[in-house]
Amino acid sequence: MEGFSGNIDWTDIAYVTDFYELTMAAAYYYSNYQTEYGSNKIKGIFEMFVRKLPRNRSYLVTAGLEQVLYFLMNVKFNEGQLSYLKSLEVFKDMGEDFFEYLRNFKFTGNVWAVPEGTILFPNEPMIRVEAPIIEAQIVETYILSMMNFQSLIATKASRIVTAAKGKSVIEFGSRRAHGPQAALLAARASYIAGCVGTSNTLAGYKLGIPIFGTSAHSFIMSFEKEVEALKQFNKIFPSGYLLVDTYDTVAAIRKIIKSGITTAGIRLDSGDLYSLSVEVRRLLDSAPNGYYANTKIMASGDLNEYLIHDLLNRGAPIDSFGVGTELSTSRDDPAMNGVYKLVAIKIPSSAPTHNEARVDEKILYKAKTSPAKRTYPGPKQIYRIFENGLIKNDFIALENEEQPPSSLPLLQKILDNGSLSKLPSLREIQRFHLDQIKKIPLKFLNLHFVPQSFAVFYSKQLEATSREFKPE
Amino acid sequence: MEGFSGNIDWTDIAYVTDFYELTMAAAYYYSNYQTEYGSNKIKGIFEMFVRKLPRNRSYLVTAGLEQVLYFLMNVKFNEGQLSYLKSLEVFKDMGEDFFEYLRNFKFTGNVWAVPEGTILFPNEPMIRVEAPIIEAQIVETYILSMMNFQSLIATKASRIVTAAKGKSVIEFGSRRAHGPQAALLAARASYIAGCVGTSNTLAGYKLGIPIFGTSAHSFIMSFEKEVEALKQFNKIFPSGYLLVDTYDTVAAIRKIIKSGITTAGIRLDSGDLYSLSVEVRRLLDSAPNGYYANTKIMASGDLNEYLIHDLLNRGAPIDSFGVGTELSTSRDDPAMNGVYKLVAIKIPSSAPTHNEARVDEKILYKAKTSPAKRTYPGPKQIYRIFENGLIKNDFIALENEEQPPSSLPLLQKILDNGSLSKLPSLREIQRFHLDQIKKIPLKFLNLHFVPQSFAVFYSKQLEATSREFKPE
Repeated sequence: MEGFSGNIDWTDIAYVTDFYELTMAAAYYYSNYQTEYGSNKIKGIFEMFVRKLPRNRSYLVTAGLEQVLYFLMNVKFNEGQLSYLKSLEVFKDMGEDFFEYLRNFKFTGNVWAVPEGTILFPNEPMIRVEAPIIEAQIVETYILSMMNFQSLIATKASRIVTAAKGKSVIEFGSRRAHGPQAALLAARASYIAGCVGTSNTLAGYKLGIPIFGTSAHSFIMSFEKEVEALKQFNKIFPSGYLLVDTYDTVAAIRKIIKSGITTAGIRLDSGDLYSLSVEVRRLLDSAPNGYYANTKIMASGDLNEYLIHDLLNRGAPIDSFGVGTELSTSRDDPAMNGVYKLVAIKIPSSAPTHNEARVDEKILYKAKTSPAKRTYPGPKQIYRIFENGLIKNDFIALENEEQPPSSLPLLQKILDNGSLSKLPSLREIQRFHLDQIKKIPLKFLNLHFVPQSFAVFYSKQLEATSREFKPE
Repeated sequence: MEGFSGNIDWTDIAYVTDFYELTMAAAYYYSNYQTEYGSNKIKGIFEMFVRKLPRNRSYLVTAGLEQVLYFLMNVKFNEGQLSYLKSLEVFKDMGEDFFEYLRNFKFTGNVWAVPEGTILFPNEPMIRVEAPIIEAQIVETYILSMMNFQSLIATKASRIVTAAKGKSVIEFGSRRAHGPQAALLAARASYIAGCVGTSNTLAGYKLGIPIFGTSAHSFIMSFEKEVEALKQFNKIFPSGYLLVDTYDTVAAIRKIIKSGITTAGIRLDSGDLYSLSVEVRRLLDSAPNGYYANTKIMASGDLNEYLIHDLLNRGAPIDSFGVGTELSTSRDDPAMNGVYKLVAIKIPSSAPTHNEARVDEKILYKAKTSPAKRTYPGPKQIYRIFENGLIKNDFIALENEEQPPSSLPLLQKILDNGSLSKLPSLREIQRFHLDQIKKIPLKFLNLHFVPQSFAVFYSKQLEATSREFKPE
């Protein structure tokens, strides 16, 4: 058919970018006043960080790095894209050499990043990119959209998993996620933060995340009698959970017990989940011969961390939670405001020789100074300081400063001149995140109160460099 | 590299589905008690509608239909997916005939839908699917994720465009959208609702949406002196807008005027946009010889419909708005709660003959009756009633009821046994939407007040059918 599928072809991935990255690329390309060696020889050092956490959050959880690295190692422009660019009014007089530059474009830079699943606080760089400035600029939008979204969802999921106090949480939000890809990425990010699985089949198939599914009301409704539908489903999926709230939850439970359907579990999807879970548990437990004593209760239906906390606090006998819309959209605040800011440029300080590796470079720190959007200049490192095995605070310093004692540098070089470090599996990332949750001060796990201070300190040298930075 | 790119291959699109659609498919497949002709001969009629509008909204704008139709016409399962399914514990004893069914799966049903860009109210069906019940069930998650997201963004964009009172609004939110595909789809949905364009390059390339871009702070910062950066950018892109808030907005404007850079426009991206726009306009207008009288002012930076309304109300001399995060995430409420509910099944009432077209079908109305989630049974039509060229109210009736006078049926048959009606272009959809905005009562365009009643009435027959519906 004519029209647009809505899917992004992998070969088009370079155009997942704000158009100004391409106008800037051209402007960098033709601006060589700064050095006789051409602007492409100028390197830019950019850091991605979040100025302010989403509402109600006390920390953020990073996610999306694997997809960013995949992008960086594969990004290139195709002829269709270049023809389109040439067809645009603003590019019509651009020299062919620029298009030739794009034709040969690839990302050759270095990347430092904190591991996926890391707990971070505002203004802490999660990624640092050092590359010829055009390369570093062109990849901005993709890095931001991927990291912002997955980190947003991992952060929300981490709160929900904490609220569930060891009960299983399953991500159920594909239908409300922001399109099919967001559904898949939300499943990934939720798993990283401790969900036991997802309803998203593609996440199972492509990422090996455990998938879960019961049935929907439509299945029940397609039968003349509810009990027949429950029997049929149970016959075909003996280990499957039965959905009991299509018409009347308590009546459905009575029908199950009366007809002796042996079910592993039931799912409540509407109504007052506290009262219903108590009543259903009572009915199940009072059935003859303890026949339903091991039947589990799963709850779903517009749940979030606050509702789960409240249900468990009141002792609701719920064994697992399916969380959809609130998780896959991070509903109480659906935006992670990550930014990608130039912190330094590197300029060759002498003419390049045939052996370019020997060119000396001069580093110039850079910072934005607009009100309320001021940034710290220079490439930085985050040192996490531990005390008795717990995180005490973070210390941010210029990368060339000395490492403080009992500290762990969080940013690691992950892409080094095209060579990628081994990435952890999703299971490993999940374990890493859950281990950190055990190590952060309890005040950060309080769902109802955001601590005022984030225990992040800056080195004197960084503060001085920032204070002394005076752009013209 | 090893790992997962984050991109969805088009050939995997069938797995963008909640796993329960597949367990239900198997359960339908093996449940043939209802008819001797097998459950696959039972047709399901499903309607997608929204129970409740997102917070602060007075209406919704439908979008995403083209992508849904593309999906329906192309969805199929591949061998990799089938092998994965067989490897799962719950499917390990499933008969090969079910996998064979999936292997040959295609969507053969009919689809009715309101045109993209239509203004709708709660409980009004935007899509109706009639298909063999397994087919209609399997496509649920994709339809919902695509329609919910694009309608969410079109609805938000429509409000923002209304607030801008004829000034241009450009969608700038790719970096905060929920991943790369969401960025692209947000650009599409925003354009439908009246944005003049987007910053998303892929939306320009793939969808022909006008794209806009200026430059970022990093470009300015990469130069030693701000004025040099502005000069360079202006030399290369004479029609481009200059970004002036990297260090000090007013100082930057003075530098531009002093150095005589002829710029088409400037962009403010931070600070108090009202005061800055007034001051910048004054500076530009008081430059010698009216040299900057035609220089435009664009504003961006966490804008939404309320802030734009306020800026214009106070007379801010802003010519266009770039709207990012708040638009591409629908930040004040990021979820459109569309659901997809079974409203009827059709069962063959006599044995099929070789000519299946002659099989008589019996229709059975279906509805969910759980508290607060009750649905109206039966396939429906929305009739929009006009008075003096304006929308007076909507009237929802069973599809076989008589059409009221002076009314327009909103649901149209768009996919008929695999044959697709011609789809409108994005420009046509945009015009259609903007025309409707002129026709809805003004109270629905008030940003600050949500009307209590949505002017939607139900036919007596529909109310009676609903009242009399008694499931067992």
